[in-house]
Amino acid sequence: MSKEAEIREAAMRIFREKGYHAASMQEIANAVGMQKGSLYYYISSKQELLFKIFEEAIGSMARELEAIYARPLSPREKLREAIAAHVRAISQRLDMLSIFLRETRVLSPGQEEVIDIHRLRYERLLQRIVSDGMKSGEFRALDPKLTTYALLGMTNWIYRWYNPSGRFASEQIADIFTDLIFNGLLAPAAGGRDREGR
Amino acid sequence: MSKEAEIREAAMRIFREKGYHAASMQEIANAVGMQKGSLYYYISSKQELLFKIFEEAIGSMARELEAIYARPLSPREKLREAIAAHVRAISQRLDMLSIFLRETRVLSPGQEEVIDIHRLRYERLLQRIVSDGMKSGEFRALDPKLTTYALLGMTNWIYRWYNPSGRFASEQIADIFTDLIFNGLLAPAAGGRDREGR
Repeated sequence: MSKEAEIREAAMRIFREKGYHAASMQEIANAVGMQKGSLYYYISSKQELLFKIFEEAIGSMARELEAIYARPLSPREKLREAIAAHVRAISQRLDMLSIFLRETRVLSPGQEEVIDIHRLRYERLLQRIVSDGMKSGEFRALDPKLTTYALLGMTNWIYRWYNPSGRFASEQIADIFTDLIFNGLLAPAAGGRDREGR
Repeated sequence: MSKEAEIREAAMRIFREKGYHAASMQEIANAVGMQKGSLYYYISSKQELLFKIFEEAIGSMARELEAIYARPLSPREKLREAIAAHVRAISQRLDMLSIFLRETRVLSPGQEEVIDIHRLRYERLLQRIVSDGMKSGEFRALDPKLTTYALLGMTNWIYRWYNPSGRFASEQIADIFTDLIFNGLLAPAAGGRDREGR
Protein backbone atom coordinates (compact mmCIF):
# COMPACT_ATOMS: atom_id res chain seq x y z
CA MET A 1 0.00 0.00 0.00
CA SER A 2 1.32 3.48 -0.82
CA LYS A 3 1.97 5.89 2.04
CA GLU A 4 -0.94 8.05 0.87
CA ALA A 5 -3.30 5.06 0.94
CA GLU A 6 -2.02 4.08 4.38
CA ILE A 7 -2.69 7.61 5.67
CA ARG A 8 -6.19 7.58 4.16
CA GLU A 9 -7.02 4.23 5.78
CA ALA A 10 -5.79 5.31 9.20
CA ALA A 11 -7.69 8.60 8.91
CA MET A 12 -10.91 6.83 7.90
CA ARG A 13 -10.74 4.57 10.91
CA ILE A 14 -10.07 7.48 13.28
CA PHE A 15 -12.75 9.68 11.68
CA ARG A 16 -15.26 6.89 12.08
CA GLU A 17 -14.32 6.09 15.67
CA LYS A 18 -14.10 9.64 17.01
CA GLY A 19 -15.95 11.68 14.44
CA TYR A 20 -14.24 13.99 11.98
CA HIS A 21 -14.31 17.03 14.24
CA ALA A 22 -12.78 15.32 17.27
CA ALA A 23 -9.98 13.66 15.28
CA SER A 24 -6.60 15.40 15.15
CA MET A 25 -3.78 15.32 12.62
CA GLN A 26 -1.54 14.27 15.52
CA GLU A 27 -3.56 11.07 16.04
CA ILE A 28 -3.46 10.30 12.33
CA ALA A 29 0.31 10.82 12.34
CA ASN A 30 0.65 8.51 15.35
CA ALA A 31 -1.46 5.83 13.69
CA VAL A 32 0.87 5.65 10.70
CA GLY A 33 4.05 6.09 12.77
CA MET A 34 4.96 9.50 11.36
CA GLN A 35 5.83 12.89 12.77
CA LYS A 36 3.02 15.38 12.32
CA GLY A 37 5.36 17.53 10.23
CA SER A 38 6.01 14.66 7.82
CA LEU A 39 2.27 14.04 7.50
CA TYR A 40 1.89 17.56 6.10
CA TYR A 41 4.27 16.55 3.34
CA TYR A 42 1.52 14.26 2.06
CA ILE A 43 -1.56 16.21 2.92
CA SER A 44 -2.20 19.89 3.59
CA SER A 45 -5.14 19.67 6.02
CA LYS A 46 -7.67 17.39 7.66
CA GLN A 47 -10.29 18.75 5.28
CA GLU A 48 -8.17 17.88 2.25
CA LEU A 49 -7.66 14.40 3.68
CA LEU A 50 -11.41 13.86 3.99
CA PHE A 51 -11.91 15.15 0.46
CA LYS A 52 -9.25 12.78 -0.93
CA ILE A 53 -10.85 9.85 0.89
CA PHE A 54 -14.26 10.58 -0.64
CA GLU A 55 -12.84 11.30 -4.06
CA GLU A 56 -10.79 8.15 -4.23
CA ALA A 57 -13.71 5.97 -3.09
CA ILE A 58 -16.44 7.47 -5.23
CA GLY A 59 -14.14 7.99 -8.21
CA SER A 60 -13.05 4.35 -8.20
CA MET A 61 -16.65 3.15 -7.90
CA ALA A 62 -17.59 5.30 -10.90
CA ARG A 63 -14.65 3.99 -12.94
CA GLU A 64 -15.57 0.40 -12.11
CA LEU A 65 -19.17 0.98 -13.18
CA GLU A 66 -17.99 2.58 -16.41
CA ALA A 67 -15.89 -0.51 -17.13
CA ILE A 68 -18.94 -2.74 -16.54
CA TYR A 69 -21.07 -0.52 -18.77
CA ALA A 70 -18.54 -0.79 -21.58
CA ARG A 71 -18.51 -4.60 -21.56
CA PRO A 72 -20.42 -6.53 -24.25
CA LEU A 73 -23.14 -7.70 -21.86
CA SER A 74 -26.91 -7.46 -21.77
CA PRO A 75 -28.42 -4.85 -19.41
CA ARG A 76 -29.45 -7.70 -17.14
CA GLU A 77 -25.89 -9.00 -16.91
CA LYS A 78 -24.55 -5.48 -16.49
CA LEU A 79 -26.95 -4.86 -13.63
CA ARG A 80 -25.90 -8.11 -11.95
CA GLU A 81 -22.25 -7.05 -12.22
CA ALA A 82 -23.04 -3.54 -11.04
CA ILE A 83 -24.87 -4.77 -7.92
CA ALA A 84 -22.01 -7.14 -7.11
CA ALA A 85 -19.42 -4.38 -7.54
CA HIS A 86 -21.47 -1.93 -5.49
CA VAL A 87 -22.04 -4.35 -2.60
CA ARG A 88 -18.34 -5.25 -2.66
CA ALA A 89 -17.30 -1.59 -2.65
CA ILE A 90 -19.63 -0.72 0.23
CA SER A 91 -18.67 -3.72 2.34
CA GLN A 92 -15.00 -2.89 1.84
CA ARG A 93 -15.53 0.79 2.60
CA LEU A 94 -17.89 0.80 5.57
CA ASP A 95 -15.78 3.41 7.30
CA MET A 96 -15.78 5.70 4.30
CA LEU A 97 -19.52 5.51 3.67
CA SER A 98 -20.27 6.01 7.33
CA ILE A 99 -18.24 9.19 7.33
CA PHE A 100 -19.60 10.33 3.98
CA LEU A 101 -23.19 10.01 5.16
CA ARG A 102 -22.59 11.49 8.57
CA GLU A 103 -20.23 14.40 8.09
CA THR A 104 -22.00 17.21 6.36
CA ARG A 105 -20.99 20.84 5.94
CA VAL A 106 -17.34 19.81 6.25
CA LEU A 107 -16.02 20.06 2.71
CA SER A 108 -15.53 23.35 0.90
CA PRO A 109 -18.16 24.18 -1.75
CA GLY A 110 -15.61 23.43 -4.49
CA GLN A 111 -14.78 20.06 -2.97
CA GLU A 112 -18.46 19.20 -2.52
CA GLU A 113 -19.01 19.98 -6.17
CA VAL A 114 -16.29 17.54 -7.24
CA ILE A 115 -17.73 14.76 -5.05
CA ASP A 116 -21.22 15.48 -6.36
CA ILE A 117 -20.01 15.18 -9.94
CA HIS A 118 -18.63 11.69 -9.24
CA ARG A 119 -21.77 10.68 -7.38
CA LEU A 120 -24.07 11.90 -10.13
CA ARG A 121 -21.90 10.22 -12.77
CA TYR A 122 -22.31 6.98 -10.83
CA GLU A 123 -26.06 7.32 -10.30
CA ARG A 124 -26.74 8.29 -13.92
CA LEU A 125 -24.76 5.38 -15.27
CA LEU A 126 -26.61 2.93 -13.03
CA GLN A 127 -29.87 4.49 -14.18
CA ARG A 128 -28.78 4.10 -17.79
CA ILE A 129 -28.27 0.35 -17.29
CA VAL A 130 -31.77 0.18 -15.79
CA SER A 131 -33.25 2.23 -18.66
CA ASP A 132 -31.40 0.19 -21.29
CA GLY A 133 -32.95 -2.97 -19.86
CA MET A 134 -36.40 -1.43 -19.89
CA LYS A 135 -35.95 -0.37 -23.51
CA SER A 136 -34.64 -3.79 -24.56
CA GLY A 137 -37.61 -5.46 -22.85
CA GLU A 138 -35.49 -7.42 -20.37
CA PHE A 139 -36.78 -5.30 -17.49
CA ARG A 140 -40.32 -4.25 -16.77
CA ALA A 141 -41.19 -0.63 -17.56
CA LEU A 142 -41.09 0.82 -14.03
CA ASP A 143 -39.84 4.31 -13.36
CA PRO A 144 -36.06 4.11 -14.07
CA LYS A 145 -35.13 6.78 -11.54
CA LEU A 146 -37.13 5.31 -8.64
CA THR A 147 -35.82 1.85 -9.54
CA THR A 148 -32.28 3.19 -9.41
CA TYR A 149 -32.92 4.83 -6.03
CA ALA A 150 -34.36 1.54 -4.75
CA LEU A 151 -31.18 -0.26 -5.84
CA LEU A 152 -28.94 2.39 -4.31
CA GLY A 153 -30.92 2.29 -1.06
CA MET A 154 -30.74 -1.48 -0.70
CA THR A 155 -27.04 -1.56 -1.37
CA ASN A 156 -25.88 1.60 0.39
CA TRP A 157 -27.85 0.71 3.51
CA ILE A 158 -25.42 -2.18 3.98
CA TYR A 159 -23.17 0.28 5.82
CA ARG A 160 -25.70 0.23 8.69
CA TRP A 161 -25.82 -3.51 9.29
CA TYR A 162 -22.94 -5.30 7.56
CA ASN A 163 -20.71 -7.28 9.85
CA PRO A 164 -17.48 -8.36 8.12
CA SER A 165 -17.26 -11.35 10.45
CA GLY A 166 -20.98 -12.18 10.14
CA ARG A 167 -22.91 -14.88 8.31
CA PHE A 168 -22.81 -13.39 4.84
CA ALA A 169 -19.92 -12.58 2.55
CA SER A 170 -20.47 -9.63 0.25
CA GLU A 171 -20.83 -12.03 -2.73
CA GLN A 172 -23.76 -13.79 -1.05
CA ILE A 173 -25.45 -10.52 -0.20
CA ALA A 174 -25.08 -9.41 -3.81
CA ASP A 175 -26.52 -12.74 -5.06
CA ILE A 176 -29.53 -12.58 -2.77
CA PHE A 177 -30.21 -8.88 -3.49
CA THR A 178 -29.92 -9.50 -7.24
CA ASP A 179 -32.31 -12.44 -6.98
CA LEU A 180 -34.75 -10.30 -5.00
CA ILE A 181 -34.56 -7.36 -7.38
CA PHE A 182 -34.72 -9.50 -10.52
CA ASN A 183 -37.37 -12.02 -9.46
CA GLY A 184 -39.27 -10.35 -6.65
CA LEU A 185 -40.41 -11.69 -3.32
CA LEU A 186 -43.74 -13.24 -4.34
CA ALA A 187 -43.81 -16.96 -4.92
CA PRO A 188 -45.02 -17.78 -8.45
CA ALA A 189 -48.01 -19.70 -7.04
CA ALA A 190 -49.10 -16.64 -5.07
CA GLY A 191 -50.01 -14.90 -8.30
CA GLY A 192 -46.84 -12.87 -8.67
CA ARG A 193 -46.08 -10.84 -11.77
CA ASP A 194 -49.42 -9.10 -11.62
CA ARG A 195 -49.27 -5.38 -11.40
CA GLU A 196 -50.72 -5.60 -7.93
CA GLY A 197 -54.21 -4.41 -8.61
CA ARG A 198 -53.20 -1.34 -10.54
CA MET B 1 -50.32 20.85 17.61
CA SER B 2 -49.25 20.68 21.28
CA LYS B 3 -46.54 23.04 22.49
CA GLU B 4 -44.21 20.05 22.95
CA ALA B 5 -44.79 18.94 19.36
CA GLU B 6 -44.25 22.48 18.12
CA ILE B 7 -40.94 22.66 20.00
CA ARG B 8 -39.86 19.30 18.58
CA GLU B 9 -40.67 20.40 15.02
CA ALA B 10 -38.76 23.66 15.35
CA ALA B 11 -35.81 21.85 16.91
CA MET B 12 -35.72 19.24 14.14
CA ARG B 13 -35.59 21.92 11.49
CA ILE B 14 -32.84 23.83 13.26
CA PHE B 15 -30.85 20.66 14.01
CA ARG B 16 -31.04 19.69 10.38
CA GLU B 17 -30.10 23.11 9.05
CA LYS B 18 -27.23 23.88 11.43
CA GLY B 19 -26.32 20.49 12.84
CA TYR B 20 -27.13 19.44 16.39
CA HIS B 21 -23.92 20.80 17.91
CA ALA B 22 -24.19 24.27 16.39
CA ALA B 23 -27.86 24.71 17.34
CA SER B 24 -28.66 26.56 20.56
CA MET B 25 -31.64 26.42 22.91
CA GLN B 26 -31.95 30.18 22.33
CA GLU B 27 -32.60 29.66 18.62
CA ILE B 28 -35.16 26.98 19.35
CA ALA B 29 -36.88 29.32 21.81
CA ASN B 30 -36.90 32.09 19.21
CA ALA B 31 -38.36 29.78 16.57
CA VAL B 32 -41.38 28.98 18.74
CA GLY B 33 -41.69 32.54 20.10
CA MET B 34 -40.79 31.67 23.69
CA GLN B 35 -38.35 32.92 26.28
CA LYS B 36 -35.48 30.51 26.80
CA GLY B 37 -36.53 30.15 30.44
CA SER B 38 -40.03 29.03 29.43
CA LEU B 39 -38.56 26.50 27.00
CA TYR B 40 -36.86 24.79 29.95
CA TYR B 41 -40.31 24.31 31.45
CA TYR B 42 -40.97 21.85 28.63
CA ILE B 43 -37.56 20.33 28.12
CA SER B 44 -34.51 20.02 30.37
CA SER B 45 -31.72 20.05 27.75
CA LYS B 46 -30.89 19.94 24.07
CA GLN B 47 -29.90 16.30 24.48
CA GLU B 48 -33.26 15.41 26.01
CA LEU B 49 -34.98 17.24 23.16
CA LEU B 50 -33.11 15.15 20.58
CA PHE B 51 -33.93 12.00 22.49
CA LYS B 52 -37.64 12.89 22.62
CA ILE B 53 -37.65 13.58 18.89
CA PHE B 54 -36.16 10.18 18.10
CA GLU B 55 -38.33 8.37 20.62
CA GLU B 56 -41.56 9.91 19.39
CA ALA B 57 -40.72 9.16 15.74
CA ILE B 58 -39.45 5.61 16.13
CA GLY B 59 -42.01 4.75 18.81
CA SER B 60 -44.90 5.86 16.62
CA MET B 61 -43.54 3.93 13.62
CA ALA B 62 -43.31 0.80 15.78
CA ARG B 63 -46.86 1.26 17.10
CA GLU B 64 -48.18 1.72 13.58
CA LEU B 65 -46.42 -1.45 12.42
CA GLU B 66 -47.84 -3.36 15.40
CA ALA B 67 -51.33 -2.23 14.44
CA ILE B 68 -50.76 -3.46 10.87
CA TYR B 69 -49.41 -6.75 12.16
CA ALA B 70 -52.51 -7.28 14.31
CA ARG B 71 -54.93 -6.80 11.41
CA PRO B 72 -56.57 -9.86 9.83
CA LEU B 73 -54.54 -9.63 6.64
CA SER B 74 -52.30 -12.00 4.73
CA PRO B 75 -48.52 -11.45 5.07
CA ARG B 76 -48.53 -10.06 1.54
CA GLU B 77 -51.18 -7.47 2.42
CA LYS B 78 -49.43 -6.68 5.69
CA LEU B 79 -46.17 -6.11 3.87
CA ARG B 80 -47.87 -3.80 1.39
CA GLU B 81 -49.35 -1.79 4.27
CA ALA B 82 -46.02 -1.80 6.11
CA ILE B 83 -44.12 -0.44 3.10
CA ALA B 84 -46.75 2.27 2.56
CA ALA B 85 -46.62 3.28 6.25
CA HIS B 86 -42.83 3.27 6.29
CA VAL B 87 -42.49 5.38 3.13
CA ARG B 88 -45.08 7.81 4.47
CA ALA B 89 -43.32 8.05 7.84
CA ILE B 90 -39.93 8.67 6.23
CA SER B 91 -41.22 11.22 3.75
CA GLN B 92 -42.96 13.09 6.55
CA ARG B 93 -39.91 12.93 8.81
CA LEU B 94 -37.01 13.70 6.51
CA ASP B 95 -35.55 16.08 9.08
CA MET B 96 -35.73 13.53 11.85
CA LEU B 97 -34.17 10.69 9.88
CA SER B 98 -31.44 12.94 8.58
CA ILE B 99 -30.52 13.89 12.12
CA PHE B 100 -30.89 10.34 13.41
CA LEU B 101 -28.50 8.98 10.81
CA ARG B 102 -26.03 11.83 11.09
CA GLU B 103 -25.73 12.63 14.75
CA THR B 104 -23.94 9.83 16.52
CA ARG B 105 -22.41 9.76 19.98
CA VAL B 106 -24.85 12.46 21.11
CA LEU B 107 -27.35 10.56 23.25
CA SER B 108 -26.52 9.13 26.64
CA PRO B 109 -25.99 5.33 26.76
CA GLY B 110 -29.35 4.94 28.52
CA GLN B 111 -31.12 7.02 25.86
CA GLU B 112 -29.41 5.10 23.06
CA GLU B 113 -30.62 1.89 24.59
CA VAL B 114 -34.24 3.06 24.58
CA ILE B 115 -34.01 4.13 20.93
CA ASP B 116 -32.36 0.83 20.02
CA ILE B 117 -35.18 -1.11 21.68
CA HIS B 118 -37.76 0.71 19.53
CA ARG B 119 -35.66 0.26 16.41
CA LEU B 120 -35.14 -3.45 17.01
CA ARG B 121 -38.83 -3.91 17.82
CA TYR B 122 -39.61 -2.34 14.48
CA GLU B 123 -37.08 -4.36 12.50
CA ARG B 124 -38.06 -7.67 14.12
CA LEU B 125 -41.72 -7.10 13.44
CA LEU B 126 -41.05 -6.30 9.80
CA GLN B 127 -38.91 -9.42 9.59
CA ARG B 128 -41.73 -11.44 11.15
CA ILE B 129 -44.11 -10.31 8.40
CA VAL B 130 -41.51 -11.38 5.82
CA SER B 131 -40.97 -14.75 7.57
CA ASP B 132 -44.71 -15.35 7.95
CA GLY B 133 -45.12 -14.89 4.20
CA MET B 134 -42.25 -17.28 3.49
CA LYS B 135 -43.81 -19.89 5.79
CA SER B 136 -47.27 -19.47 4.27
CA GLY B 137 -45.80 -19.88 0.78
CA GLU B 138 -46.83 -16.42 -0.39
CA PHE B 139 -43.21 -15.27 -0.50
CA ARG B 140 -40.22 -17.11 -1.88
CA ALA B 141 -37.89 -18.64 0.67
CA LEU B 142 -35.10 -16.07 0.60
CA ASP B 143 -33.18 -15.12 3.72
CA PRO B 144 -35.73 -13.23 5.88
CA LYS B 145 -33.15 -11.01 7.56
CA LEU B 146 -31.43 -9.92 4.34
CA THR B 147 -34.83 -9.39 2.72
CA THR B 148 -35.83 -7.17 5.64
CA TYR B 149 -32.59 -5.18 5.36
CA ALA B 150 -33.22 -4.77 1.63
CA LEU B 151 -36.68 -3.37 2.38
CA LEU B 152 -35.37 -1.07 5.09
CA GLY B 153 -32.59 0.15 2.82
CA MET B 154 -34.87 0.96 -0.10
CA THR B 155 -37.31 2.82 2.11
CA ASN B 156 -34.97 4.55 4.54
CA TRP B 157 -32.76 5.78 1.70
CA ILE B 158 -35.66 8.00 0.67
CA TYR B 159 -34.32 10.56 3.13
CA ARG B 160 -31.41 11.15 0.72
CA TRP B 161 -33.39 11.95 -2.39
CA TYR B 162 -37.04 12.65 -1.58
CA ASN B 163 -38.26 16.04 -2.66
CA PRO B 164 -41.66 16.91 -1.13
CA SER B 165 -42.41 19.16 -4.09
CA GLY B 166 -41.09 16.67 -6.64
CA ARG B 167 -42.73 14.34 -9.13
CA PHE B 168 -43.75 11.58 -6.74
CA ALA B 169 -46.06 11.58 -3.75
CA SER B 170 -45.14 9.14 -1.02
CA GLU B 171 -48.09 6.89 -2.01
CA GLN B 172 -46.71 6.52 -5.53
CA ILE B 173 -43.23 5.72 -4.27
CA ALA B 174 -44.71 3.08 -1.98
CA ASP B 175 -46.72 1.58 -4.86
CA ILE B 176 -43.73 1.39 -7.17
CA PHE B 177 -41.41 0.01 -4.48
CA THR B 178 -44.01 -2.60 -3.50
CA ASP B 179 -44.45 -3.61 -7.12
CA LEU B 180 -40.67 -3.88 -7.53
CA ILE B 181 -40.19 -5.90 -4.33
CA PHE B 182 -43.19 -8.18 -4.98
CA ASN B 183 -42.77 -8.77 -8.70
CA GLY B 184 -39.16 -8.02 -9.46
CA LEU B 185 -37.56 -6.07 -12.25
CA LEU B 186 -37.30 -8.79 -14.88
CA ALA B 187 -39.94 -8.88 -17.57
CA PRO B 188 -41.73 -12.26 -17.62
CA ALA B 189 -40.56 -12.89 -21.18
CA ALA B 190 -36.94 -12.41 -20.11
CA GLY B 191 -37.06 -15.67 -18.16
CA GLY B 192 -37.66 -14.20 -14.73
CA ARG B 193 -38.44 -16.31 -11.71
CA ASP B 194 -35.40 -18.50 -12.18
CA ARG B 195 -33.02 -18.55 -9.31
CA GLU B 196 -30.50 -16.81 -11.50
CA GLY B 197 -28.13 -19.67 -12.15
CA ARG B 198 -27.79 -20.78 -8.58
